[in-house]
Parts: sequence; structure tokens; C-alpha cells
Amino acid sequence: MIRSRVYEEDRLVRAFVPAHITAFFVPVIRDKPSESGSLGAGVNLDKGTTVFLSPDESSHGIRVLFNGNPVNRSEAVISYAVAEEVTRNHEDRGFEVWQYFDFPNGYGFGNSAGGALGTALVTGYVSSRTLLDVARIAHRYEVIHRGGLGDVVAQLAGGVDIRTKAGEPGVAVVDNIITCGLYVVSIYLGPLKTKDVLDDDVLSSIKNKGKEALKRLLKFPSVPLMMELARGFSEDVGLLDGELASIANELDRVTSVRSSMIMLGRGVFSFVSYKELPAVERLLSDLDVQYDVSKVYCGRPLVEMWRGSPSRKTKSGH
Amino acid sequence: MIRSRVYEEDRLVRAFVPAHITAFFVPVIRDKPSESGSLGAGVNLDKGTTVFLSPDESSHGIRVLFNGNPVNRSEAVISYAVAEEVTRNHEDRGFEVWQYFDFPNGYGFGNSAGGALGTALVTGYVSSRTLLDVARIAHRYEVIHRGGLGDVVAQLAGGVDIRTKAGEPGVAVVDNIITCGLYVVSIYLGPLKTKDVLDDDVLSSIKNKGKEALKRLLKFPSVPLMMELARGFSEDVGLLDGELASIANELDRVTSVRSSMIMLGRGVFSFVSYKELPAVERLLSDLDVQYDVSKVYCGRPLVEMWRGSPSRKTKSGH
Repeated sequence: MIRSRVYEEDRLVRAFVPAHITAFFVPVIRDKPSESGSLGAGVNLDKGTTVFLSPDESSHGIRVLFNGNPVNRSEAVISYAVAEEVTRNHEDRGFEVWQYFDFPNGYGFGNSAGGALGTALVTGYVSSRTLLDVARIAHRYEVIHRGGLGDVVAQLAGGVDIRTKAGEPGVAVVDNIITCGLYVVSIYLGPLKTKDVLDDDVLSSIKNKGKEALKRLLKFPSVPLMMELARGFSEDVGLLDGELASIANELDRVTSVRSSMIMLGRGVFSFVSYKELPAVERLLSDLDVQYDVSKVYCGRPLVEMWRGSPSRKTKSGH
Repeated sequence: MIRSRVYEEDRLVRAFVPAHITAFFVPVIRDKPSESGSLGAGVNLDKGTTVFLSPDESSHGIRVLFNGNPVNRSEAVISYAVAEEVTRNHEDRGFEVWQYFDFPNGYGFGNSAGGALGTALVTGYVSSRTLLDVARIAHRYEVIHRGGLGDVVAQLAGGVDIRTKAGEPGVAVVDNIITCGLYVVSIYLGPLKTKDVLDDDVLSSIKNKGKEALKRLLKFPSVPLMMELARGFSEDVGLLDGELASIANELDRVTSVRSSMIMLGRGVFSFVSYKELPAVERLLSDLDVQYDVSKVYCGRPLVEMWRGSPSRKTKSGH
């Protein structure tokens, strides 16, 4: 049964979920998705995934679109599963879920979790479901379909996150380094297929090195130490290849905090101060690589009625 | 040992913590503050407590000021305790903690927790402490000195909160009704001394009625139901006196969602749509009562370097 919204006419619902870059991690895989997830550290960005929910009067069921293009069930298995479960009590109605990504898919920016959580939030908004209730559903399908392990709970927390207990939303414990206002530069060369790189040896190394990094970070939590540990982690587990290492080293020459690898994508990221930005941008322009500059996102995911163009923002709408 | 901030000169640190109104609650008091807290529901506002941290070069130790006026230890026992514990490794330095409140103290807006958490955040920002680490300290002194039980964890979550598990930050589970953009009108007649009203009979009634309200809300979580349950709660526990009930009834005539009592203050609050606002404001002006209009605050508490006047916001500062 759809709850009729008390205050709003039937406008689009919009959710924003920050992009999430993992710096280092420890996968935690249990029989139950509710206990699965990951430990580690990362950062949420003020760009990410925007999801719109639009009632589709002409049909029933769910239709998912990525950047304006309809995608079928096999291309968006997590989003379809999330939307169908959250709206399962009103299958007589049709919904379109429009997902827009600021970063390319598969490059390590948590797009999968962004789409899952954003879909959960917009469908949850029009149903009688709470935030944790629908966020758990997003986490569960992320884990089941291996979209990601810790992105959903990190995105719910925002900021520079330290995940100290794995599990679904409400079970996981996500702490934060108290910092805002920093810039994050990310250079992305290409996607990285999780399956291709995570053989048993690498996985075992990731678990050991990740645990060690987390333990050290919790003793003196700070962004510089987090990035130092992340760099060591990415080198130790053997994922930082020559081209990435070379970019990371170049960046280190113009930033005071060390750069490290995006887990998991063929990319590098770094925290940068306002003053360091011009030199960083000059360097990246010389290197001729695809890059982005965002700020740390310290809020929670947003859900709201979308009033369209600014002219409709005023007064009674119509 | 003070961590030297990597990116910033020695400017003021500012934190904002939303005001928190409790709609209904179940106190949970255990031997350990970490397991104590409250269950229930409430709402965070986009006004609240702003805390500045200023290094005091001329002395050492902590000095707390409320709205610009120095307060001694007995008037601000929680803030002093929090600030001293967070900064305990650098007692050689002096700090001034300036707290500014948008609402009067003791009226049920969570000022005590706002001051405690805001103090924890600004002092945590200049130390190597994480968000949960310092928020736990704020919660603990809130519980020990009976400032509040559930405000800190609710303020950390933001939004319209449903507290489903009591305890300190990282232990408590705080859910949200997925909603933003609503206005909250609060009418405040005066403070309410918790000790005066909470005799054993009232407390026992609060526990029973609060549990029942929470159970019902979780079945169909929505703002209208939350307020319906809150109104029943405040009547059943006998705290909604004649004057408050009369204001609540007047408000109900011009709003679609029921109003209820601020727990705990001599006040009434109500969720109001944009369209209902003019009629509500006319009514409250006629009634000649002190009131405020805020919006639901859906973010997390903010901590940032404060750059002072807009002219200093640009470029290199000095």
C-alpha cells in the first residue's frame, strides 16, 4: 500500500548518494549478508549518484535507466532487486528509476552502492519504510551480487570514514575522522574487475594488511596517516601497478599528503588543500589524464521532492 | 599532544549541532553510561547550538562561555568535563569554548547535548580523536549529569529520528523517517525541570506508553503517525497541561498533522507544510506566544574551520 504523501503533490523524488572511494579494506564475508561487509577507511565525495523516481502511469513494475538509457534486468540486477523489494506491496503501480552517475561505472567510486542506496531511498520515500529498513535492502543485494561490501554503510555516514565493525546498516559501526573542507583529486584510468585481481593470495594479503592498517589508523586517526597506510597497503597487496605508481609519485611531489590507489579501480586519489590545487591541476593537465576534483562530502545521503527548475521553487508550485 | 593541522592556519574551529525535540521516549538507565540512553522519536532542527573553539594563548585549561558570557564549572559541568577529557593530553594549552544557543536553555531543545557534542567536536577536531570517540564522551557526561539521555545520538543522525536501540554512539541504533523539507513550528512557554515532573509514577507511565508508541510507529513509520502517537503519549503521561493542550488544539485547526508537546519543556511543536505556514503564523501571532519556525535538519553535525567574515573566505586568508 502506497502511503499518500501528506504534503506534496505528485512530483519527482530525488536522492543523492555520495561517491565513495575506499583507501584500504578488509573484506568480511559471512553466511548472512547482514553480518557481511568490510572494515577499512575511505572518503565520500560531493559528487556521486543522483536517482530520480518517476511514477510510470502507463505500466506497472520497475524500469531502471542509467544516464538516461534503459537497462535491462541483467545489466542492473541490484537496482531491480532493491526497487522491487521496497515497492513489493504496491506492484500494481509502475515506477521508473533514473540513475545518473558523476563517475564511470566500475572505476571504484561506489556507483553500484550509490545506485542501490539511491534506489532504496527514493522508493522508500514513497512507501512506509524507514531509512535503515531500505538501506539494509540495498546493502543485502550489494553483498549478494558482489556490487560492494562496505560502500552502503560508508555512504550513509559520509565524510572520511573508518569502518570499525562490518555488517548491514544498524549493525556496522562507521566512525569518522573529524575533517571537512578538503579537496579530493581522483585520476581514473580505467575499471578494474574485482574477480580478475582478487585471487586467493591477493585476498589473504588484503585481509592481513588491511587489518594492520586499520589498527594503526585507529591509534592516531588523521588523514595524512590514513593515506600513508593506504599507500603501503596498495603496494603490499601488489595492486599498484607501474603506471598508477608513477602517477602517485608525481602527485606526491606537489601535495603534502600522500596519494594512493582507488580500491578497486585503475585510479589514484589524493587529498589536496586549496593552496595545492593549482599545482595539482597543472601537473594532471601535463600528464594528460582524466581526473576530477571534488570536496569531501560530510552530510548524509539526501532525499527530497524535486521541484524542477528554479522558477518552480517559489510559492505554491502550480 | 596536539596534532598540527596539515592544511589550515590557526583559525577558529566551529561546530553546529542541531536542536533536537523529543516527541516521545522511553528512558533506558543502566549502570554503564555506554548502555544508557533512550528509545523514542523526535526531530532535529536547522537551528541549534553553535560552538567555537578559540586557543587561549594567555592561560591554560578550559574556559566555557554561554552566549558570550563566561560560565563557571558548576553552571556548565558537562561542557567542562567533555572539553577537559578530550583535550587531556595537552593541558599545557588554553582553550575557550564559546557556545551560542538558538533556543533558551531548559526548554527541551537539546541545548545541553548540543553544547556537549559541539564541545566534543571542536576539541576533537584539534586532537587526534575520531567522531565516535569524542561523541561517546559527550554522551557519557550527558548521562552522568542528567543533561539528556538520547539527544546526542539523535543529533548525530539528524532528520526525523526513531531511536530503536539505546546506548552510546556506535551502540545506539537510530533510524529515520525518510523525509526532509518540512517546517517545524515550536511554541515555547517556559522550561520544565525534569526532576520536578518525573516522579516514579510518571516515569513508569512514560516507559509503558513510550514503548507502545514506538512499537506502533515502527509498523507504519510516518510523520503524521509519529505525531498522533506523541500526542497520545503526552496526554497519557499527564504532562500536557491545560495551557499547552489549548495551544495544541488551536494549532490542530490549521495544520494537517497533529501537534504535540516538547519533551521536556513547557512547549508545543508541530510539523507544518509550506502552504500551512501563513495560517499558523497568523494564529501564533494572535495567541501572542513566543514561537520559532525551523526546517527539519537532515544532515550531520558540522565541524569546520571558520574563516570569519566573507572577505576572508577567498584565497589565501593572510
